Amino acid sequence: MNFCNECGGTVHLTIPPGDNLPRHVCEVCATIHYLNPKLVVGCVVEWGDRILLCRRSIQPRYGLWTVPAGFMENGETTREAAVRETQEEARARVELDAPYALISVPHINQVHLFYRARLLEASFSPGLETLETKLFAEEMVPWHDIAFQTVALCLRAFFSDRRAGHFRFHEAALPPVTDRRSQPAGG
Amino acid sequence: MNFCNECGGTVHLTIPPGDNLPRHVCEVCATIHYLNPKLVVGCVVEWGDRILLCRRSIQPRYGLWTVPAGFMENGETTREAAVRETQEEARARVELDAPYALISVPHINQVHLFYRARLLEASFSPGLETLETKLFAEEMVPWHDIAFQTVALCLRAFFSDRRAGHFRFHEAALPPVTDRRSQPAGG
Repeated sequence: MNFCNECGGTVHLTIPPGDNLPRHVCEVCATIHYLNPKLVVGCVVEWGDRILLCRRSIQPRYGLWTVPAGFMENGETTREAAVRETQEEARARVELDAPYALISVPHINQVHLFYRARLLEASFSPGLETLETKLFAEEMVPWHDIAFQTVALCLRAFFSDRRAGHFRFHEAALPPVTDRRSQPAGG
Repeated sequence: MNFCNECGGTVHLTIPPGDNLPRHVCEVCATIHYLNPKLVVGCVVEWGDRILLCRRSIQPRYGLWTVPAGFMENGETTREAAVRETQEEARARVELDAPYALISVPHINQVHLFYRARLLEASFSPGLETLETKLFAEEMVPWHDIAFQTVALCLRAFFSDRRAGHFRFHEAALPPVTDRRSQPAGG
């Protein structure tokens, strides 16, 4: 951040009075510009014993598989975000169940929230950010081609809970990245 | 938003190619500026059968009571945010239990997340944003002077669950505001 988006003045990093972190503060109008983590919201969509995955047509992770998910927008609830992303990425209508997993990804300033969901009808197709949409039984999930570490973590928990016959809410935080494939990013 | 914080150019609202919502786009460098909801994270802190509340020394809701909570910062996990806010607002050290409530507040572009937590020792005092810190038994909670609707919702669920002997994860969304007192805002 170089300029104030209110007045166009130059910003500089300084710790405002009463604060304890450096913020971008405008040298002209004194507006303090806070930067905060973003929420990525999506869902694990079931149809019978299979789940719906989307193969990404955009970067990051072009060509890899994910669940429908994306950045939450202003003015919507987390549920509305999950339903909208599923409609946009998989052209699918879903009924959401409970929140299922909340995963902090601090090195990229994101928090990922996944619901469980059910397809309302056997109808889905690729949206603009998707190459391919497909239902997978557990044993067919392309584990080596899952786009994001948070999605893999969520799906492993999902199948484990399903085998155990009991879904519980999961919370986790990802450690810093060590290699390209394991790096998460907003869907 | 009037100016690009990357190059200082003028921004205008337009729907970028492949998008379906108007965004602030820079007329000079073409950067798209996305605005997304912010996470407010805090906790319901227990000490024996009482809970710790803070009376606010800042606006909004000066003088009203809340649980320790505030905007999540870049680079931290949701757990770290809850622990930090409790340290900052109540000078208290806590051990977090499970996530307890997730409440969307779409009309102010926020999502509030509350954990359950326990004080590690009977030591707390007002931080910079707090006039007073105090332990309350359920029957002493100042329900008419709770600062935010999300906090009241979370506390009512907490005491109800505690009486039932079972804490479950709660998810909700607030409807739009109708009067001043019911309006939530970031703690």
